Amino acid sequence: MRYPTVTEFIEAKRDRGTHNADEIREFILGYSRGEIPDYQASAWLMAVYMNGLSDEETFALTEAMVESGATLDLSAIPGLKLDKHSTGGVGDKVTLAVVPILAAAGIPIAKMSGRGLGFTGGTIDKLESIPGFRVSLSQEEIVDAVQRTGACICAQTGDLVPADRKLYALRDVTGTVESIPLIAASIMSKKIAASADVILIDVKVGRGAFMKTLPQARELAGLLVRIGEAHGRIVHAVLTAMDVPLGRMIGNWLEVEEAAALLRPDPENPPDGRLRDEVAHIASKGLELTNKAKEHSVSDLIESGAAFRKLVEIVEAQGGDPAVFDTGRPARKSVPARAKRSGFVTSIDAEALGRAAMHLGAGRLRKDDPVDPLAGVAILAPIGSEVRAQMALAYLRHDGSRDAGPIVDAVQNAFVIADEPAPLPPLILGEIESKSL
Amino acid sequence: MRYPTVTEFIEAKRDRGTHNADEIREFILGYSRGEIPDYQASAWLMAVYMNGLSDEETFALTEAMVESGATLDLSAIPGLKLDKHSTGGVGDKVTLAVVPILAAAGIPIAKMSGRGLGFTGGTIDKLESIPGFRVSLSQEEIVDAVQRTGACICAQTGDLVPADRKLYALRDVTGTVESIPLIAASIMSKKIAASADVILIDVKVGRGAFMKTLPQARELAGLLVRIGEAHGRIVHAVLTAMDVPLGRMIGNWLEVEEAAALLRPDPENPPDGRLRDEVAHIASKGLELTNKAKEHSVSDLIESGAAFRKLVEIVEAQGGDPAVFDTGRPARKSVPARAKRSGFVTSIDAEALGRAAMHLGAGRLRKDDPVDPLAGVAILAPIGSEVRAQMALAYLRHDGSRDAGPIVDAVQNAFVIADEPAPLPPLILGEIESKSL
Repeated sequence: MRYPTVTEFIEAKRDRGTHNADEIREFILGYSRGEIPDYQASAWLMAVYMNGLSDEETFALTEAMVESGATLDLSAIPGLKLDKHSTGGVGDKVTLAVVPILAAAGIPIAKMSGRGLGFTGGTIDKLESIPGFRVSLSQEEIVDAVQRTGACICAQTGDLVPADRKLYALRDVTGTVESIPLIAASIMSKKIAASADVILIDVKVGRGAFMKTLPQARELAGLLVRIGEAHGRIVHAVLTAMDVPLGRMIGNWLEVEEAAALLRPDPENPPDGRLRDEVAHIASKGLELTNKAKEHSVSDLIESGAAFRKLVEIVEAQGGDPAVFDTGRPARKSVPARAKRSGFVTSIDAEALGRAAMHLGAGRLRKDDPVDPLAGVAILAPIGSEVRAQMALAYLRHDGSRDAGPIVDAVQNAFVIADEPAPLPPLILGEIESKSL
Repeated sequence: MRYPTVTEFIEAKRDRGTHNADEIREFILGYSRGEIPDYQASAWLMAVYMNGLSDEETFALTEAMVESGATLDLSAIPGLKLDKHSTGGVGDKVTLAVVPILAAAGIPIAKMSGRGLGFTGGTIDKLESIPGFRVSLSQEEIVDAVQRTGACICAQTGDLVPADRKLYALRDVTGTVESIPLIAASIMSKKIAASADVILIDVKVGRGAFMKTLPQARELAGLLVRIGEAHGRIVHAVLTAMDVPLGRMIGNWLEVEEAAALLRPDPENPPDGRLRDEVAHIASKGLELTNKAKEHSVSDLIESGAAFRKLVEIVEAQGGDPAVFDTGRPARKSVPARAKRSGFVTSIDAEALGRAAMHLGAGRLRKDDPVDPLAGVAILAPIGSEVRAQMALAYLRHDGSRDAGPIVDAVQNAFVIADEPAPLPPLILGEIESKSL
């Protein structure tokens, strides 16, 4: 370190100074190894929250976090490996559809996902709603699964980026979560350690997302792309709207079922248009960036049944029973939330529905709460629908153990019903991609 | 708490919000009791460092810190009790002279002091250079000593303001020391817990002090006074220059000896003029604020021998041997630092001499280092002196166990010698006192 002590390192950031890469590396590795105590790390995190990090500092932080643990060795798998990440939104089951579509085009994907906390869900919780599905795979099992089926979706292995796990837990209790460079380093360190060549990132924007405004989201997306470039990765960030829930289902099994249905279209029961558009947009970008766009198109991969067959293969390879896609998994109780008046649905508050699903048992209030795989909210009247008073807007699914009354009220209030229809809000708000493309 | 969680309390200050008194009280008492961990306290301290505290928040912080422990009960002692505090400077032995002067005028003083850390000394270390002197007194011994001799000077008792001890140790390692509201609350919580009615505060300003600039020092002084007012205390803050060392002696025994000599003037060997002026200024203010200025003057209290007799009484009451004031305590080694050229001493770098004394053994690099009571620097050519090349500017006193060579160089370089004499810099830079006076 250029500074003789950790305290002087903290003071440098406090006073808007700049750390060099070696200093950041020593601090992060020292903290990860337990040589630097939590109370010094939290003071530094607050100084970073308030004074920011330069791009170079953020690159060094990402690098040091990667260095704190193992990296996934995908060298045995030929071709450009792809990864996909979402910053999290309500009803966001895009990963569950995009991964099988792209794997069906022969793109290798070793996708590691997280669990849900708060009002947004986590892909791992969603997949665990499939009976038998194993989310904890070893490094060897991941490589083996990608070699055999072309893709796997699993929990992050414990040896990847331990510094991020430790820092995230500390940020969570010290008011230092919402820092764009800290968020960016956390996301990208995991993507880089997972050895993807091409990284698709869906940055959600709006009241149902972590980034509430477009400028914030744009700043984060730009930084994610620049970190990727600094590590020689191709990164494409899409900014998508998250004011209303994505698709019609919110809840673990409900979302898996909606994603599976999207891959197996039924003309009698067409998928949600906005969900389909977003999946198509992101999957097409994945084909393009891996040079597969000439051989494949998203609509062909879906309509031929290849994407759904790939989903079944992935589920089977990880011990899950794909029969569930035909039998369904009904919740014990299903309670309607009804329209208070007639008119047009002009808005649905994504955060309110996310919180409703959480309170029904689909999400966690605390880190180690169990989740109910079947709980959630099924929307019957998506944005743009015309409704009549007393018609069901949504069904609340739960296990019968809780008083759904207040949650029904909250869901009712989340729907804005007006006399006139309003134009649908835009879905894709912007894109940022590596300059090297 | 208005906020459901400690994290939200931290976030409120991070986002420039305002805490109410109850929230601050719960946070500080929770931290003091060990219910709130260091890592949350340090994140909050960094947010306070960067976003500040309002006066009301600082009053509430001071109050909560007082409430974290016991308060000294001086109710058995009649009259206005006085306390004196210095923010710390190089060669600052003013307390050692002012306390006996004011006690000789019948003003009760229960003075608790700290130890030195870094390049400024601490009164407790200085007094321990008197053989036998006991600095650790119980609450009962303090009250008893003040009742019998009118004054005592001792270490802070362990049960006063435990929150300050814990917070200060944390600030020291998290880059959150130099915050004016945190400094002010730390100082005033101890003065208020020690139950003084009249508080004299010497805020040192300059390169040999903690406050480097006059605006900073004025801000601190104003806040100290306002905290005192909020607690019904009379506070007078004097801003004094600390660019050059105060007096001619730096080091524990050397400073006790210089203070004692000031109280026992020898026409053959007059005291340093600036030291005498500052002692007289602060002691006069003490007489005035306790309504003793009509009966007593500082010069009478010194010239009559009353102040020196009081010093001897205080030393004897705390087990010290006053014979040392006659016999002296020479260090083993005394090495001169000589003038490199002839001319006039126009400046002496206080911090450089403070560091020299520390490296000679008079101070601590780390909290539990021992100090050498006899080590230090004796200045022969104070500011304004005319010197000839090779004349001794100062003597370095030490125990002979260290290589004084580099320290001699540092002391030589601390003296600025010019062709022409420069006007002496002003000593008293400002005063702020309670509006209630």
